[in-house]
Amino acid sequence: MIFPGRVRDYNREMSPTEFQLETLGIVGVGLIGGSIAAAARKRGLAQRVIGYGRNRQRLEQARSRGLIDDIAPRAEDLGSCRLIVVCTPVDRLGSDLREMLTLSSPSTLVTDVGSVKGPVVDQVIASAPDPHRYIPAHPIAGSHLQGFEHADADLCADRLCLLTPLPQNAPADIALVSDFWKAIGMRVSTMSVEEHDRVLALTSHLPHLAASAVAAMIEESLLEYAGTGYRDTTRVAAGDPDLWTAIFTENAVALARSTRQLIQTLDSFLSALESGNHADIRDLLQQGRQRRSHFHREQSDE
Amino acid sequence: MIFPGRVRDYNREMSPTEFQLETLGIVGVGLIGGSIAAAARKRGLAQRVIGYGRNRQRLEQARSRGLIDDIAPRAEDLGSCRLIVVCTPVDRLGSDLREMLTLSSPSTLVTDVGSVKGPVVDQVIASAPDPHRYIPAHPIAGSHLQGFEHADADLCADRLCLLTPLPQNAPADIALVSDFWKAIGMRVSTMSVEEHDRVLALTSHLPHLAASAVAAMIEESLLEYAGTGYRDTTRVAAGDPDLWTAIFTENAVALARSTRQLIQTLDSFLSALESGNHADIRDLLQQGRQRRSHFHREQSDE
Repeated sequence: MIFPGRVRDYNREMSPTEFQLETLGIVGVGLIGGSIAAAARKRGLAQRVIGYGRNRQRLEQARSRGLIDDIAPRAEDLGSCRLIVVCTPVDRLGSDLREMLTLSSPSTLVTDVGSVKGPVVDQVIASAPDPHRYIPAHPIAGSHLQGFEHADADLCADRLCLLTPLPQNAPADIALVSDFWKAIGMRVSTMSVEEHDRVLALTSHLPHLAASAVAAMIEESLLEYAGTGYRDTTRVAAGDPDLWTAIFTENAVALARSTRQLIQTLDSFLSALESGNHADIRDLLQQGRQRRSHFHREQSDE
Repeated sequence: MIFPGRVRDYNREMSPTEFQLETLGIVGVGLIGGSIAAAARKRGLAQRVIGYGRNRQRLEQARSRGLIDDIAPRAEDLGSCRLIVVCTPVDRLGSDLREMLTLSSPSTLVTDVGSVKGPVVDQVIASAPDPHRYIPAHPIAGSHLQGFEHADADLCADRLCLLTPLPQNAPADIALVSDFWKAIGMRVSTMSVEEHDRVLALTSHLPHLAASAVAAMIEESLLEYAGTGYRDTTRVAAGDPDLWTAIFTENAVALARSTRQLIQTLDSFLSALESGNHADIRDLLQQGRQRRSHFHREQSDE
């Protein structure tokens, strides 16, 4: 049974209210999956939002909270969705995407939320049927909190969603998935899989690694002497170690390159400190401040 | 002319309302100096709060805002204050403290807000008269904002103030200065000068250095792809480069030691990434999370 989307022309800009699918599937109803489900329901983007996941009891709770309309008891029950969004951790994405592509109808499109794309895309292309139905996505939105309990229909609003389309994808399918993310409230931008992973290593994975390294160095007994600088710089170190181990492992090559660059920058600071070179210290601080000043999202959600 | 404080017994805990000086001097009416002045006025800790600084026009503006009662046209006009708080940048503290100790009366006590203590204390002991009248302090409170325009009478409230008393200080004088910081709303703790600089290198200066290094690495063109992890981890990199160059330079020895430790931790991350060692990556992330979880000041001011 096929539930076609009602979108007619995927190549034009559309207002969010024009977008509606009959059935939307969400695999993994946690913080991100729950937030996407809530946004789709709040904005009327689908007649039914169906959740699927490993823990039936938590799915029931998510339904009680109104995040999803229904629960798919088995993976194949999502097979007739027009669009399935796979929101599981990056180390499970490859096999979950393969499962969805295997079990779903030829008209079902599948997208995801993985913050690393290369290994996931490779795995889908190597092992899944119909990889052309997989349009990779990465909505840049999140929180150090976990679980659908913290889901928020506005988590993605006004944020950027990166699409990394495959050569196999049809333009109309890319457009439908792009319109879905726009209808969720996001801006959509497109880049290659390789560029995505290189960019995210710098803009997301490296800050997390640096925050964890600093946090790991400072003993509990000293924390009473820590102030707002420590608080902000290490905040993301509170994130889930399993989730981030998966991200770091999947993006190990690009992240290692960024980490080597960071060590070089720290070596420059160290030389300037050891030689008492005020001008060099100031230049490094000034460069950080200068680049940081171009970031204009101070008021975004926590 | 001497304006004795009205505090009778400096060795007991006192409620803030019991504390009152006739005249309080503030040298450097910026973010911190202005906030301390505002707190003293709000809490009625002095009959008069007198500001002194290099820029007369800005002092006039600070007075218009109600941060200070009066302006001292010359440094010697603070000479009869019971207590002078020197709030200038750390690279000017040594000479400003010497000036205040030179010009003030034998009953005037002098304290400061410097976030590095060793070189300042050394300079005072080596070159100032009456070093016993200088009771070094470091209120751990601040903001990446600058200037009295952002001063806030509650900036220091419920924060920690570290005292690093000198062997020359009299217990009653230490007690008066301690009571002043408590009356401002702070908790007061005491440590040695050396311990202070070692601890702050880790808990404050290193996070700032790491934030600056990460911010310096990420080009402006990539910032649209940055999310909350980047935002938090690099926030303090927006701080004043001159102020932080002074702090890093004054605390160069301890900060260099901490920076070497950070590079070692990053080397461990790098090895784990290069060898694909999930368990090591997870251990490092878990240690960061574990230590960070003991920090309980998420709700403090921005």
